Amino acid sequence: MKKIYAEILAIGDELLYGQTLDTNSHWISGELDKAGIKVIRRTTVGDIEQEILTAFAEAETRADIILITGGLGPTSDDLTKPCLCKYFNCGLEINQEALTEITEFFKSRGRELTELNRQQAALPTACEKITNTLGTAPGMWFNKRDKVFMSMPGVPHEMKKMMTDSVIPKLLEKFKTPIIQHQIIKTVGIGESFLADKISSWEKALPGHLKLAYLPSLGEVKLRLTGMGSSQEEIKHEIAEWIEKLKPLAGEYIYGYGEESLESVIGNLLREQKLTIAVAESCTGGYLSHLITSVPGSSDYFLGSMIPYAYEIKMRQLGVKPETLEKYGAVSEPTIIEMANIVRAKFNTNIGVATSGIAGPGGATPEKPVGTVWIAYSDKHQTVTRKLQLSKDRMINIRMASMAVLNLIRLSLPSKS
Amino acid sequence: MKKIYAEILAIGDELLYGQTLDTNSHWISGELDKAGIKVIRRTTVGDIEQEILTAFAEAETRADIILITGGLGPTSDDLTKPCLCKYFNCGLEINQEALTEITEFFKSRGRELTELNRQQAALPTACEKITNTLGTAPGMWFNKRDKVFMSMPGVPHEMKKMMTDSVIPKLLEKFKTPIIQHQIIKTVGIGESFLADKISSWEKALPGHLKLAYLPSLGEVKLRLTGMGSSQEEIKHEIAEWIEKLKPLAGEYIYGYGEESLESVIGNLLREQKLTIAVAESCTGGYLSHLITSVPGSSDYFLGSMIPYAYEIKMRQLGVKPETLEKYGAVSEPTIIEMANIVRAKFNTNIGVATSGIAGPGGATPEKPVGTVWIAYSDKHQTVTRKLQLSKDRMINIRMASMAVLNLIRLSLPSKS
Repeated sequence: MKKIYAEILAIGDELLYGQTLDTNSHWISGELDKAGIKVIRRTTVGDIEQEILTAFAEAETRADIILITGGLGPTSDDLTKPCLCKYFNCGLEINQEALTEITEFFKSRGRELTELNRQQAALPTACEKITNTLGTAPGMWFNKRDKVFMSMPGVPHEMKKMMTDSVIPKLLEKFKTPIIQHQIIKTVGIGESFLADKISSWEKALPGHLKLAYLPSLGEVKLRLTGMGSSQEEIKHEIAEWIEKLKPLAGEYIYGYGEESLESVIGNLLREQKLTIAVAESCTGGYLSHLITSVPGSSDYFLGSMIPYAYEIKMRQLGVKPETLEKYGAVSEPTIIEMANIVRAKFNTNIGVATSGIAGPGGATPEKPVGTVWIAYSDKHQTVTRKLQLSKDRMINIRMASMAVLNLIRLSLPSKS
Repeated sequence: MKKIYAEILAIGDELLYGQTLDTNSHWISGELDKAGIKVIRRTTVGDIEQEILTAFAEAETRADIILITGGLGPTSDDLTKPCLCKYFNCGLEINQEALTEITEFFKSRGRELTELNRQQAALPTACEKITNTLGTAPGMWFNKRDKVFMSMPGVPHEMKKMMTDSVIPKLLEKFKTPIIQHQIIKTVGIGESFLADKISSWEKALPGHLKLAYLPSLGEVKLRLTGMGSSQEEIKHEIAEWIEKLKPLAGEYIYGYGEESLESVIGNLLREQKLTIAVAESCTGGYLSHLITSVPGSSDYFLGSMIPYAYEIKMRQLGVKPETLEKYGAVSEPTIIEMANIVRAKFNTNIGVATSGIAGPGGATPEKPVGTVWIAYSDKHQTVTRKLQLSKDRMINIRMASMAVLNLIRLSLPSKS
């Protein structure tokens, strides 16, 4: 099968000045990769006519598909449309369908259509209009022999919706790329190299048309399994079969699939089992509670937290015994056990979790260096603790310790029965 | 003065596949802009020899300075060095100084130098070695007539240190760009357009060699004042004078300068005045405490928090009066006043702050739509409240409400006396 090449072109002075981080090109790269289209180059140019025209011409020599973002605003420094007219040797005309859509867009928001906005419906006559359902700058699709130029707005959510709903399907139809399916498998509690070791026999046994990618980030490792073939159903089925084979090797580390986050997975487990949870967090300073409450509807199971940052607050407000703190210190197993049990009892929840550690850079002792963290999980049947030895970096330690607690909840929850 | 143009070239398949977000090119863009060098284009290519060589040649036609990142790892898929050798028509030789530095680097970490790592000291003979103080891949500086090619590692912190310590100073020396000074002025509590209105007379009065940029982000607006001239001292002095003239117009919104964050500024104010603080946060769910404790050394002034997410916890654990909750609801001024006062009394701190609101998407009523948030500040002299009407987005509301509380602390702290 012939390889299909794409080039991504981002237009805008604000990108070259370092004012705006170009996340569009990155996102488009990932989407094209998933669609079986190879990105050969990415280019960023400013709002300068000659630069834009040169970039068009250069891209056409290299790629089958040229995807353009930005430079479509209604003001005069936005040059993409005039440049497209020049490049495709055509004029600019009001597109009646686009005008209707833009008028509707403003009406639905109770705003009046200005002349400046009306001009957004003026499109190069050589293009096919692609509807922008979230904004006022339409997309423009140009066929040039067997190649495609596609111009999209630079506003990320408008561009993403247009890509997903219209551009990717049209590209797949035109270029007959192989049918591709992806599944993201999310793991936590194991580093990339250890995971690779554990699943190496499985990875080696994968057939040639199934590809595996490791996507590590702070506190978790994602696996992406990509299948190519001639039937969507067949690939889906095959991927599902290989995931079943993966489970005996790495099942305990797999917490979810696709877009699921660890905090949403735990939220669903708690909601399903009608369990409630409370948090006593010291070194994580609120970040663990923030992760839990970042999930919409988390008030169904999360009742509240104590953040006993100071020694006195651990004693007087939370109620850790002074003897425990004096004998073992705040960063110790006996203290963390009390913290988890007390917050569960006080807040009258099914589950209590706790963190206490040295986030750094200060506060370390020879026995308890920066990155030493104790975490605990408590329910009516059991109290489980873990000692972590993390990094020297305060923000990394806060993030990793919080993720470790979420994972401890996942592993310790009473199994559904 | 002649304009100096730069092109930024990022090399790596992982960028084109959408696996790694290229933050390097963005950061370099900003640094060059600050140095008075105009970025004319940014290009990303994969690990393919012909692509890299073409990109070198194209960049040379457009720019005076070509800055290259990535492709310097020790493995065989990293092609930048062989490509540079071809382009500059020279061989690869062990650079003795680089070898000493790499050996030292490994020794200081108690690791042995492998043959693969030893090869990182092999450099094109046409280049000048630039020391990498944080890693093992040296930078390479090539002069080609009046142009410069500079190759740097792709690891962000290694590249940034090399740029700041060596590359920018060398470029400024070679290209005699105008002397440029920047000052970032950080504001909070006012939107971009309102701020622009307030300071328009000041902005119009700025002399031509002082340029103003608005850099808005979630919850704050940064102003960047850039001065150009012939003497560093003179520009610095002039910028300071114009900032003094800005203060009568926008002083109450200015919380800091340069790299200061709102949470670190408040931390310093609290520490200087030997004040302590406690938090009762409901709708912000831990994020406010997380911001405060993200500052190293925050245990000097932050004693702890309660997160009374559930109604019962607000009553039983924090101690808000049932009558108040019943009569006014959890999202109300009487409740928020009690929350701030109680947490201050319970935790025995000088200051108490509180949040309660509808973060969304659920929980709204006709009178209290999503985005309604009450915040309060309490010390022994006063209790100050604010009602916010934020957005429909849960994460934006959590962030904006937390920033608003930090700003309320800043504005309400007893003045130093």
